[in-house]
Amino acid sequence: MRAARLHEYTDDMTNGLSVDEVDAPQVSNSGDVVVDIEGAGWCQTDNHIIEGMWTDYVEQTLPLTLGHENAGTVVETGEEVTTVSEGDQVVCHPVQTCGTCRPCRQGETMYCENQQFNGLTVDGGFADQLHTSERSVVPLPEGVDPATIAPHADAGITAYHAAKKAVDGLNPGDACVVVGVGGLGHIGLQCIDAMSAADIVAVDIKREARDLATELGAHYTIDPESEDVANEVADITDGVGAAQVLDFVGADETTQLAPDVCAAGGDHHIIGYGGHIHEPAQALVNGEFAYQGNIVGQYTELQELVALVERDAVQLHTTQYELDEINTVAEKLEHGEIEGRAVITP
Amino acid sequence: MRAARLHEYTDDMTNGLSVDEVDAPQVSNSGDVVVDIEGAGWCQTDNHIIEGMWTDYVEQTLPLTLGHENAGTVVETGEEVTTVSEGDQVVCHPVQTCGTCRPCRQGETMYCENQQFNGLTVDGGFADQLHTSERSVVPLPEGVDPATIAPHADAGITAYHAAKKAVDGLNPGDACVVVGVGGLGHIGLQCIDAMSAADIVAVDIKREARDLATELGAHYTIDPESEDVANEVADITDGVGAAQVLDFVGADETTQLAPDVCAAGGDHHIIGYGGHIHEPAQALVNGEFAYQGNIVGQYTELQELVALVERDAVQLHTTQYELDEINTVAEKLEHGEIEGRAVITP
Amino acid sequence: MRAARLHEYTDDMTNGLSVDEVDAPQVSNSGDVVVDIEGAGWCQTDNHIIEGMWTDYVEQTLPLTLGHENAGTVVETGEEVTTVSEGDQVVCHPVQTCGTCRPCRQGETMYCENQQFNGLTVDGGFADQLHTSERSVVPLPEGVDPATIAPHADAGITAYHAAKKAVDGLNPGDACVVVGVGGLGHIGLQCIDAMSAADIVAVDIKREARDLATELGAHYTIDPESEDVANEVADITDGVGAAQVLDFVGADETTQLAPDVCAAGGDHHIIGYGGHIHEPAQALVNGEFAYQGNIVGQYTELQELVALVERDAVQLHTTQYELDEINTVAEKLEHGEIEGRAVITP
Amino acid sequence: MRAARLHEYTDDMTNGLSVDEVDAPQVSNSGDVVVDIEGAGWCQTDNHIIEGMWTDYVEQTLPLTLGHENAGTVVETGEEVTTVSEGDQVVCHPVQTCGTCRPCRQGETMYCENQQFNGLTVDGGFADQLHTSERSVVPLPEGVDPATIAPHADAGITAYHAAKKAVDGLNPGDACVVVGVGGLGHIGLQCIDAMSAADIVAVDIKREARDLATELGAHYTIDPESEDVANEVADITDGVGAAQVLDFVGADETTQLAPDVCAAGGDHHIIGYGGHIHEPAQALVNGEFAYQGNIVGQYTELQELVALVERDAVQLHTTQYELDEINTVAEKLEHGEIEGRAVITP
Repeated sequence: MRAARLHEYTDDMTNGLSVDEVDAPQVSNSGDVVVDIEGAGWCQTDNHIIEGMWTDYVEQTLPLTLGHENAGTVVETGEEVTTVSEGDQVVCHPVQTCGTCRPCRQGETMYCENQQFNGLTVDGGFADQLHTSERSVVPLPEGVDPATIAPHADAGITAYHAAKKAVDGLNPGDACVVVGVGGLGHIGLQCIDAMSAADIVAVDIKREARDLATELGAHYTIDPESEDVANEVADITDGVGAAQVLDFVGADETTQLAPDVCAAGGDHHIIGYGGHIHEPAQALVNGEFAYQGNIVGQYTELQELVALVERDAVQLHTTQYELDEINTVAEKLEHGEIEGRAVITP
Repeated sequence: MRAARLHEYTDDMTNGLSVDEVDAPQVSNSGDVVVDIEGAGWCQTDNHIIEGMWTDYVEQTLPLTLGHENAGTVVETGEEVTTVSEGDQVVCHPVQTCGTCRPCRQGETMYCENQQFNGLTVDGGFADQLHTSERSVVPLPEGVDPATIAPHADAGITAYHAAKKAVDGLNPGDACVVVGVGGLGHIGLQCIDAMSAADIVAVDIKREARDLATELGAHYTIDPESEDVANEVADITDGVGAAQVLDFVGADETTQLAPDVCAAGGDHHIIGYGGHIHEPAQALVNGEFAYQGNIVGQYTELQELVALVERDAVQLHTTQYELDEINTVAEKLEHGEIEGRAVITP
Repeated sequence: MRAARLHEYTDDMTNGLSVDEVDAPQVSNSGDVVVDIEGAGWCQTDNHIIEGMWTDYVEQTLPLTLGHENAGTVVETGEEVTTVSEGDQVVCHPVQTCGTCRPCRQGETMYCENQQFNGLTVDGGFADQLHTSERSVVPLPEGVDPATIAPHADAGITAYHAAKKAVDGLNPGDACVVVGVGGLGHIGLQCIDAMSAADIVAVDIKREARDLATELGAHYTIDPESEDVANEVADITDGVGAAQVLDFVGADETTQLAPDVCAAGGDHHIIGYGGHIHEPAQALVNGEFAYQGNIVGQYTELQELVALVERDAVQLHTTQYELDEINTVAEKLEHGEIEGRAVITP
Repeated sequence: MRAARLHEYTDDMTNGLSVDEVDAPQVSNSGDVVVDIEGAGWCQTDNHIIEGMWTDYVEQTLPLTLGHENAGTVVETGEEVTTVSEGDQVVCHPVQTCGTCRPCRQGETMYCENQQFNGLTVDGGFADQLHTSERSVVPLPEGVDPATIAPHADAGITAYHAAKKAVDGLNPGDACVVVGVGGLGHIGLQCIDAMSAADIVAVDIKREARDLATELGAHYTIDPESEDVANEVADITDGVGAAQVLDFVGADETTQLAPDVCAAGGDHHIIGYGGHIHEPAQALVNGEFAYQGNIVGQYTELQELVALVERDAVQLHTTQYELDEINTVAEKLEHGEIEGRAVITP
């Protein structure tokens, strides 16, 4: 089968992956599932992987088929699989988990001690087929097209996961600041809107992104290039600050908003990455806020996100590309030229 | 009456405060309380205030009587005060609150929008008497000496507050790392021990501090000068990391422990300050941990800490000094020469 | 001034209260507030009070002016009141609290150890004026009419309070059953809809109530006289049951739904009352559900509800009556003839 | 092998089970585990099963080998088992779970939609060997004897599970009432003591049980036959009531304590069963307390309990009996003649 693989780390996105002919995956364990890929979302993290930015955090063996946002149709199942069968449409949680370590048993599938991460530590879904397991596939409700939902497998649940944590700290009348209304941000914003009665304040340098935010439910928008974010948030909140901040950018300039934007006791959620936090410990003491890290959501959160999709609470903006256009997609994203989320359809 | 006052910011601790003769405080509002001070704890924050380190965060008018860890005997009460009366022994929460703003009504007294902070924004307790209010005094159980309990008014509840948050994330078998077993750390450690069944790992460069930690209930100690903290914690926790870290130091070297020491989903609590956090956003994403700021505890947490004291669950190590020795105390603390907590007894 | 007062407990609603001429209230304490009443909601609890049904739970001295759902305009304030002034429009939390007991300090104003409950233990608002305090009034946003918002003072926050607890247990895809879509139920339903993405299942014997539920956001309705509630909920939830049940009726027949309707780990919230719980302890063990009592909401929850009103998330159906029609209202409610909520406009 | 089986429901405990010769269990699925039983605790629930008291709640096919509190040595494992191997000593969680339903994925193993409950719905451990799975066995730390720890498999985690929930509502200074200091109660009491700084009030009609409570950490004891429980708790708590009540009896007389004993906002945990709840809905409204059902704890809670055992925080009082004494044990328990917990050692 065809698979878009990384052979060497590079900063040159025009040539990051090559489409190779490889063996199709086979079921080997009793819980294995093989999925015929109909859609595989391209993520900023794919660019980061190509650049070698994850080698400090995980073990990777090249060549590696990228692609961690996968959806398609089950084509083969292990002999003890009971919850899906051939022909079922599924979205694939990116992490394959053991089910027996303590984190798995607590439902914290992202902390699985024996995990394999599609397209990051094992082969992913920019290919005709994906090898995964029963523990990682969520059946799709009727009428939901795998190719349009694929990005929820990672972008979606990452945004949902952070939004769900934020919602715990949001009462009616509180403000939630969403920094960056891009691939993840526009999902997170809709999740906040669906699950809380908070006032949503969207911050983005692009006018189209701010317009999209308004359309999707934001009550206020701020252009950080022409407005002072802290002052605007103070105005909106009568000086209290935002109970929750979702930072989908994670740049130096966005992490440094926290001391001035977060309300006392609030959280600045780090979801995007690339930049640093540089703050005096005293700032966190004085404001009693947290920098809260966020990784991809749990399996059960993907189920909950699918429930949101089923009730039309979350719209996903996608554009589809062929497998052999994959480096074009990488290149376009690098230059901020992707509208919504790019989905590869092998 | 006598009051130890700051007239000018300085780095010279030998001469920071002068003992002046000033007017004694009077009751003016219906809820006011005047307390005859029997003990007032000296805090690292007092040194920081003298250095001018808080001018970026709060408004201060000099001269100012320092002292935010106060306890003593009620000598006068406003006409609508009902919960204490003349002669009652009390410990004074350092923050005077309005009781009608939303944070006060939520019990979040530290976020009071109209707060006055003893010894930081209004006159404190390094003096014969303190002006405070009914909303800020906690009656002491019989047999508890105000002079020995005074530091609980700030050091105590700050440590308790952070410990209480940490306990929410500590199951039996989990590890809690306590970084810095000094004035606050030795209280926090005891609070963790009293309220959880976690394995306590104490980290301190001083041997005496590590010995004290063991005596007070630590299950493991680490000397960060001769041992690798991350490796040791990994060994103790079978590679999982510490579910909670209480950082009573807040230096660059201690905040940077988080990515390697915190378990996935854990918290690195910032309580001590002085240094910075410098971390890539990606580290927080990868480990899904939080840097959680912590300020002084709420009024009700001071009640809870007094309950812990009453059941002998928290021992406080104090040394008493006269009011005119106050600069000696400041100087000694600067050089790490105070055993336990210094208490001024005006 | 005029006041509708209870002189004797009776089951005869046609003659429960008499409109007397009494002294107008005066400010006596520093935090007192006198409100000119523009609207005072009539509640099922008023009927219960007239019947003497609360004498086992609280101390009452007759004659007593009823009315615990009050809103109007501030006409006089005590000398230390700072958050409202003459002419401000306010909604009055029904409980007057001390502000210094431990529950008050925790924000649990309903548990105030020195509370006075308007129209239940002290004179209420079926009168030209009400005596209350700064701690119990919430300023209204501009454009909100006191007479139309009055029922939120009790019906509203009681429903909100229970809904807010329920929301903690509701993930997208979960079902929330609302039993009884009357005065409180139709508010609670809207609160659930505004603050969660749960599937709402409304249960009511009246067709108009079910239609209203659908209009206000219910996804399913059940007529318990022609359908089996447990079977219907099982169908809707694939046999899982409802994660949360809000029982605004509190009759024997509604409390007994819990074992068959509540999902494992779920809560059956008791808000309405009048009937009993009769269940074997084993049923609670087997289903691990809770019967969760709910009293009126906290002061801060009234603020949150006003925020929901301000964003048009909660519609209130009211009909206005004159003060001298008060027994007619009591009688009508007794016979289920009040559309929405009756508001007395003295 | 030998197995003590129920062939017919009966109230006659002298003859409830018969020791039959049956086929030894075999591994059939990839995750199966067979355990050689060294200890199997006898539980009040075993008497209830013999009486047919569970037939309304679960499906049972007779004959059935009873025994849900099992520990022993692994003798055979399925081909994909990785976390235990032959010769490992384990304690067996009583519920065998699928690992793929939503509750399993949330860590709520007790709500598994495909569960098998040892000795209740499938054969249990009053036998030479037990058939279970990798998902249900917790390896024992070195030096812990399976025969002495066996009752933790059900009595232990049930008590731990309820205690853990209660601890969430217990601050220092709060009171926790433990009703019934028997097989489960004496474990629950120790768990509360290990994980909180609450004041523990033990209620039991037997003097030996009260003495044991005191020895294990209770701060107060009450004899309900000679003292009024509500008055005593009011005295101990200055009229506030107990923040949490753990009812290990579940009789009519103990459930009816809640309105008078529970503090506002508190929980009355139902763990024991046999009696009923009969309360007016109004009592729950007025006191805002909950009747909280509790079933056996989760798999991860058994891990946590084993951690408590490893640090000597929980002592278990057991007496050992041979397999052929099994009806004697049933009979003795019926008459309250078992000291601590009986353990069958096949």
